[in-house]
Formats: sequence, structure tokens, C-alpha cells
Amino acid sequence: MDERYDQLPANPANYVPLSPLTFLSRAAQVHPDRTAIIHGRIERTWSGVSHRARRLASALCAHGVGRGDTVAIIAPNIPELYEAHFGVPMAGAVLNAINTRLDAKTINVILRHGRAKVLLTDTEYAETVRQALVGLDPKPLVIDICDPEGPWGTGEGEVLGETDYEAFLEQGAPDGLDERPANEWQAIALNYTSGTTGVPKGVVYHHRGAYLNAMGNIVVWAMPHHPVYLWTLPMFHCNGWCFPWTIAALAGTNICLRQITAEAIYKAIATHKVTHLCGAPIIMQMITNATDRERQSFDHKVAMMTAAAPPPSAVLAAMADQGIAVTHVYGLTECYGPGVVCDWQGAWDELPAEAQAQRQARQGVAYPVMERLMVGDPETLEPVPQDGDTMGEVFMRGNILMKGYLGNQAATDAAFAGGWFHTGDLGVWHADGYIELKDRSKDIIISGGENISSIEVEAALYQHPAVALAAVVAKKDEKWGETPWAFVELKPEASATESELIEHCRANLAHYKCPKHIVLGPLPKTSTGKTQKYLLREQANAPNAG
Amino acid sequence: MDERYDQLPANPANYVPLSPLTFLSRAAQVHPDRTAIIHGRIERTWSGVSHRARRLASALCAHGVGRGDTVAIIAPNIPELYEAHFGVPMAGAVLNAINTRLDAKTINVILRHGRAKVLLTDTEYAETVRQALVGLDPKPLVIDICDPEGPWGTGEGEVLGETDYEAFLEQGAPDGLDERPANEWQAIALNYTSGTTGVPKGVVYHHRGAYLNAMGNIVVWAMPHHPVYLWTLPMFHCNGWCFPWTIAALAGTNICLRQITAEAIYKAIATHKVTHLCGAPIIMQMITNATDRERQSFDHKVAMMTAAAPPPSAVLAAMADQGIAVTHVYGLTECYGPGVVCDWQGAWDELPAEAQAQRQARQGVAYPVMERLMVGDPETLEPVPQDGDTMGEVFMRGNILMKGYLGNQAATDAAFAGGWFHTGDLGVWHADGYIELKDRSKDIIISGGENISSIEVEAALYQHPAVALAAVVAKKDEKWGETPWAFVELKPEASATESELIEHCRANLAHYKCPKHIVLGPLPKTSTGKTQKYLLREQANAPNAG
Repeated sequence: MDERYDQLPANPANYVPLSPLTFLSRAAQVHPDRTAIIHGRIERTWSGVSHRARRLASALCAHGVGRGDTVAIIAPNIPELYEAHFGVPMAGAVLNAINTRLDAKTINVILRHGRAKVLLTDTEYAETVRQALVGLDPKPLVIDICDPEGPWGTGEGEVLGETDYEAFLEQGAPDGLDERPANEWQAIALNYTSGTTGVPKGVVYHHRGAYLNAMGNIVVWAMPHHPVYLWTLPMFHCNGWCFPWTIAALAGTNICLRQITAEAIYKAIATHKVTHLCGAPIIMQMITNATDRERQSFDHKVAMMTAAAPPPSAVLAAMADQGIAVTHVYGLTECYGPGVVCDWQGAWDELPAEAQAQRQARQGVAYPVMERLMVGDPETLEPVPQDGDTMGEVFMRGNILMKGYLGNQAATDAAFAGGWFHTGDLGVWHADGYIELKDRSKDIIISGGENISSIEVEAALYQHPAVALAAVVAKKDEKWGETPWAFVELKPEASATESELIEHCRANLAHYKCPKHIVLGPLPKTSTGKTQKYLLREQANAPNAG
Repeated sequence: MDERYDQLPANPANYVPLSPLTFLSRAAQVHPDRTAIIHGRIERTWSGVSHRARRLASALCAHGVGRGDTVAIIAPNIPELYEAHFGVPMAGAVLNAINTRLDAKTINVILRHGRAKVLLTDTEYAETVRQALVGLDPKPLVIDICDPEGPWGTGEGEVLGETDYEAFLEQGAPDGLDERPANEWQAIALNYTSGTTGVPKGVVYHHRGAYLNAMGNIVVWAMPHHPVYLWTLPMFHCNGWCFPWTIAALAGTNICLRQITAEAIYKAIATHKVTHLCGAPIIMQMITNATDRERQSFDHKVAMMTAAAPPPSAVLAAMADQGIAVTHVYGLTECYGPGVVCDWQGAWDELPAEAQAQRQARQGVAYPVMERLMVGDPETLEPVPQDGDTMGEVFMRGNILMKGYLGNQAATDAAFAGGWFHTGDLGVWHADGYIELKDRSKDIIISGGENISSIEVEAALYQHPAVALAAVVAKKDEKWGETPWAFVELKPEASATESELIEHCRANLAHYKCPKHIVLGPLPKTSTGKTQKYLLREQANAPNAG
């Protein structure tokens, strides 16, 4: 041991906290005039985006926002949400991008739990957000985003705050602010997940992890310089899997989409020569099931990354026919989006399409920036044999695992117990090291790429006075991947119809979370009284069901 | 400030020290049967390379080598040197790859200064190394590498140690050892640079920087998965610009070359379908000036990264004719090899070839993993105007700057004074943010990609009893880029011929460092007696000179 090696400490010249903010400043310095973002008639260069992000940071700072303050935003995939991925952390603050499909009550819970000091809100969601703000004390500073490409155009929608986003930017110093984190462990984003219990948990990301996962996307996807990236994946979903930062690192072009339709996707691909896009299987459905009227032809190569459900071979084949190569990834909010990739093996080239699809349907191997991935015994954390058969829980370890759950030490400790992140997902480990999910221990229903907690839906049903017992399961669905189905046992002497109960859910839940079908009758139970959900799952997915 | 964000400390599940060692374990797990390395008749998979590296680590450990111990190696670009880039740090130790062209005296100084506990030495260099070992106390454990592709084949060369490399590997445990750094700031490599003064300085790299620069290479070069990489750049040169780790991260194939000749390069490109290579301008000269007999045709795209001297337009054109696209990078040992890249601008596509070459001849902009780059006043560290005209020193800041110089606090402090790394290189800053070197304040001569300190050569000349004054400058050279030229003033009454002095240098210096030409006569001086080197540089490079 030569102690001289340890006598060379870090100094300001050779140690800089990792932060994805450096990607934006590099893009603005090296490619200032290159198109960074296109949204309908709006087009901005990297210099322009950098300028607006710095002004946002400066304006936030002028309103007392600083390190460790939460700035929430409710917006679709528009430039303001993209800018916020840089401008908010440039003020030292934490970005909380909220799912636009949530109901007012859940948004209220999130704003309250996250202690948002500022809320940027697109006027399209004004009605829901107005309700969500009721009872908040202190109220966040509310700033309306009046997107000229939005349903009402600039300044025509209902406004909730004192100022709109453009006027707010004007309050920033002309050169803006670009503060870097003092520490790479500093929080950069807060993302609420419905998680297992229906009570939203605030997943905290740090600068280090965001930097590394943004890099991981480049390596995993072998991305070129200056990709043209289409925003079909919501940026509020795990910060768009860190792609806002990835695209800046490559000085690419972001193509925004307020509304995701087959027509809009084809138009964007053909017009802007989109090279990359991400999204849930529903996006692939839109692409492959588009009508002739919605389609536009293109002859360049396109790459798509998808998660949430393994892509079936027919879909992969249809995508390939369209010139779109699909990469299957897997992850959770807790690992910054994708952390596992079904890395293509050269030997698969020789396989028939069906066998290829079978390989591709597996979740895969760790991202290069994730250090460890295993399937293990949930109790002992011993790895299961790599036999493709023994079930275990998926465990992860590495720098792209969250800091933890905001203000929830118990959940954080449980998630990281034994030095591994517990995904709660069950699967097998194949001989080649690829993992394959088999079930979700947490009963999450993934519908259109969004997680729905069955427990949250059950909780809503339980609020109805007639409900004795409720169980919600995933019903496979061609369009949405999965939809929630409910089984309800009514209280003795009580009565309620299916439509009454669905109506009740719609009054209490985001609409996409409501059961599509409710079966009334006694629920099957174990001898100890536990509902046998697997039987209900079978029933819901039987060929003759609904 | 919401203090809850700071209440989520790192734990073993969400924080793992960055280390390029993870790239090898991932390659071995995900692509175990893919070819990792080819050296003549030797071919090994990623599983095989990983296995040998782990056994090397284990064998080193069995001999008492551990954290912070130096393991030196003298070898050309062969599999053993590649393995050492993983096996040595897997034992917690520090890899010191030594320039094979150095003279025995300098190697002795390096082994002594680096306190090498083990020396792995290729039998080709046995004679020099035998001399280099004289007087070392304690002596390192010497292990001979008897490369079957080497000049003598296995076991036929002169051996210096008790054991050869293959037998040494056998001493490792069957599964080997794969220890990861406890801290990402831990040293991984030690690289001696001739630096400014001729006294070698030991540049220390850490795991974090090696990881990040390996990633930086991928992003800068938009590297695909599974590249086929030809080893024309010495791995002892800044650890091959971190490419041993980069190629593992991409599970590519390393093509080794013991001897770098035009014929060998063409053969490798054609046979193995090489996609990427790096090297000094001399490699480009070899490629473009190859004879018909040496050439082989190939029709795939090849990318080459070059540094040390800006590529002239005729060379770029000749390379393009060969189907080889050139990327110009710049760096120093202190920044892990390349840290600056002449990033291509879309707008340059439209320029005539000569104007493109002019753009490409500039050193460029910071690597994405280097946070800051500037040209500034050497005294005040104020940035110079970006006018392409005002000279200043090049300064760098970021995570790919060395830990410091081993056991040399004064030089470390000077290099990092004011929170910037002082490159000692002089240049201008263009309006588009690209830097361009104009001179080297340290009088380094770059010959065939290797640094030669003019001061070291001068010191050798001063050892000759007849020499009064010596000045060594760079003479531009079509083949080598630059060669050293000396100007010598003899002592009154003393006499010596040019060939006598060159002979004297050859006895005291590595041959590549010896002056190619020595001019005898009085040296031009300033009024204060300083030699006016710029006049000598002009003289050496005048059209009618030598």
C-alpha cells in the first residue's frame, strides 16, 4: 500500500459534481444554432432553450425558490415542460412533473406532500387543478402556461394564477441563472408513483443518477449525434426516462406532441424525419393499427424503445414492416425509468421471427450504468438458479436507483433492505442471464403505459356504502395492454348496480383508473379468508369473459 | 428548502463507486461467447478475458499485492496488457504501463519512483529491462510475458524472472478475484509523462475518471455496439486513451498488433473488418503512403481518432478516399488522453474540402464528460476574448482530470492552481467556442505520437563535456509529425562533431528522443541572456534547412 496514492484529494479543477445540466450548457455552446425543439409553429435553437431555462431559473430564484424547494408542473409534452427539466434544477430546486391524467384529489395530495412552492400549470388542466388547489395552505405560486398550440391558444384558457409563464420568464435576469449542484447527491426531481398501496410515494432522483441514466440511454441504444426524438412518452413519466437530458447530451432535436394520435405520430416522423421515440405498447398499437388516412410514408430508419409489457411477435413484425426497430426495456420509477434492456444477441439473427420475438419479450439484462441485477429469494436475497423456471423477486443495485421516498423512511428502508432495491416484480432468471417477469407481486395494472394500483381502486370501491369486499385485477386488453376489472361482494341487505359503482369510482378516481367492468357476487377465499385473486384473474381473462 | 430531500443518504443499494471494472463483468455476463480479443492465432471470448483478468487479480493478491500497490508492465499491444487493465485494478492495485521505447535509465527511475511491487515484462524488452532492474532495492517481483506471437515464441526469449505470465495466472484461484474499489476516487492507473522538465511525473488516474472517459469516448464517437477496434495506439499511452475500458463497455472486439506497420494495419482492417482505430498522425501517414503490396482493399466504413498534430487537408482527403473518417481530438496524459474533440458541425458539410480541413484542424470543444474548457490569461485565469486571435493558455476543469502527480505535491498544486488544470499549451479561442493550439509553452516535441521533452534532450547534451549551451526545438517532419533538432554552442577551446554528440545522446536517451540534426555555433540570445528559441525554431523549419 503506497499511501501517496491517497494523498491526492479532490479539488475544484478535478472534481465537479455530475449533473445533466452540463449537457445543456455544452449543447448551447457547441451547437447554439441547431434546432433543439419543435412544437407546431414554435421552433427554438439550443441557444434559445438554454436562454429560456436560465431565465426560468432566475425568475424562480427571484421568487425565493432555491435549493431543495419543490417546483411542480402539470403539462403535456410541450417546450415549457422540457425547459423545466433544466431551469428548475438550475435554480437548485427539484422538479415535480405531475401526471396530467390524475384526478384533483390525488394532485392535491401530491402538492401537499411535495410541499410545492411553485406550480406551473397548462391551461388545459385548469379545471382539475383549480379543484386540486382547494384547501392548500400555504398555496403554491401558480403560473399558467398558455400554450399557443394548446386548445385555446395564448391567453384564452381559464387562468388560475397571477402571471403566465412567458411573463414570468421576463422577470428573470436577462442572462438568467445557471447554478450547479454543490453535491451530485442533491435532489433533481420528484416523481410520485402509485406504488403498491395506492398512497402515492414521492421518488427522489439525484443529479448523479440523472446524469448516468441519460448516458446509459445513449450507450444502450447506440444513439448517434443529433437524433430527432419524438415525444410520445410523457415527460411526467419518470422524467421521460431521462430522455430530456439524453437529447441535450447529443444536441438532438425534440419534437413535441400535445396530443398523441396515430396521425400526429406519422406526420411527425415523415415531416421531421424522427429517428427515435419511446412509449408504452399502446404507441406501437397506434402505429401498427393506423388507418390509411392517418399514415404517411417515410423511408428512413426509426428506433423505438418500449416498456411495460413484452412486445408480441406480431407487433414486432408489423413495426419492422414500418421500418421501426423495437428495443424492449424494463424499469420502474425508482430506477429513473429504464434500467434493464433486452440487449440483442448476434446469435438471434439466425432465429425464426417467432423465436426472436420470444427472446425479445424477456426484460433482459442490466443497463451499463446499473451495476447489479438479479432474481432472488424475497426473504433471504439468495439468487435463484438461472434455470428459466425458479421464480424469485427482481433485485437491483446501482447508481440509477433513487435516493429514496420523500419523507418516508419506513418505505425507503423497506425498499433498500439488505443492500438491494426490491422491485416487487416476480420473475425468472434464464441461463443466459436475461431476466423475464412472470407476475407482479404488487398487483399493479399497467394500462396505456400508466400504473394503476389495484389497491387504490379497491379503496375507492370500499368507500361506497354497499361494498363489503372488493378485488381489482388486470384484464388483458388489446388496446391498452391491461384494464382494471373489479369483483365486488355487496353487504348483506345492501344493493348497488355495476353502473352505479363505476359512476362512484369515476367521481373518486382518475377516469383511466376506473374499472371497465364490475362483477357482483361472492369472492373466492382461502381457508384463512384471503381473497384468491389468481382465480379472479383467471376469470377476468377467460376466453368467454366480458 | 425542504430538508426531507437531504434525509436520504446513500446506501449499498443506490450508491456504487463508478469503476470501469463493471464494463468487463457486464460484457462477460451479457456477451460471454462474443470474441473479445484477437492476437494472431490467439482468440478469446469476453468470458475468457474476464476469467484471465480475475485469475491475474487473484495471483497478484496471493503475492501480497493489494490496494494502492503499483504493478508495472512493459509490453506492446498484446492481450496480457489488455487483461492487466482489468486484472490489476481487480486486485485493488494500480496499473503502471510503461512506454516500451524508453531507455533503461528512465525505466529504472519510473520503477523506483512508482515503487512497483510487480513488473510484468514482455521478453522482447528483456535486455533493456534487465539493465533497468539494476540497483533496485527492493526488486519487484518480475514476471516474464512470453508471447507466442512475439519474436521468439513461447519460452524462447531471455527471461528475467522466476515465473512466466501463464504460470503466474495458474497461481490464482480458479474463480479468481474481482474486488471493486471502496471509493471511486481510488487510484486505478499511473502514467509517467516526460512533462515539462524532463523529470518524469507520475500522473495518477482514478476509477471515476476512467469510467467517465471510457463513456465519453462512446458519446463523442457515437460508437455502435460491438465495434472492432484495432490497437494502433499504444495501450501504455494514457492507457490507450481509456479505450481498453470503452471496448469492454461495448462488448467489442480488440484486434492486437505487436508491430504497427502499414501492411499489418491493412491486413487487420480487411481480415477482421476493423471499424475503429486511434493513433498519432504517423498512423495516417502509414495508411495513406502504403505501397500497393502493403495495401488490401476493404469496402466497409472505418473511423479513426487522431491527436497530437492537426491533420492536414491532403491527409484527410487521402483518408476519406480510403473510406476512413477522421475525428481530431486533443488531450494530455493529465486528462486521461482525449478530453477535447473537434465536434463536426452540420454547416461544415457545405464547405469546400480545404475549408473543412481548416475547421477540423482546430482542437475543438470539451468532451461531454469534461465540464469546462477555456483559453485564459496564464496569470489571472481570465478568459481571453473569443476572437480567434488573442493567445492564452488552455485550461480544463472536470472529472477527467487526474488525481494529481504521485508524491509530488508541488507539481500537483501548480497544475491545479486557481481551480483549473493548467495544460501549458498556448492557443486561441474562436468565436464558435472551438480552441486552436498555437504553441506549446512547455517546448514539448511530439514525434510519432510520443512526447519528447526538449529539456530532457538538452540535459543529455549538457552532460557532454564540450557543450556550453544547448537548445532543442521541434522540426516539422512529414513522417513523424515532429523530430528534435538541437542547436549547440561549444565551450571555448572545446571541440566535438555533430555525429559525436548524436552518439552521446543515443548512449543516454531513448533513441526516438535523440536529435536528428545538431547545428553547431553561437545561439541567439536576448539582452538578459535567454536563448531565443523561437528564432531557432524558425531556422530549423526554414525551407532550406536540413
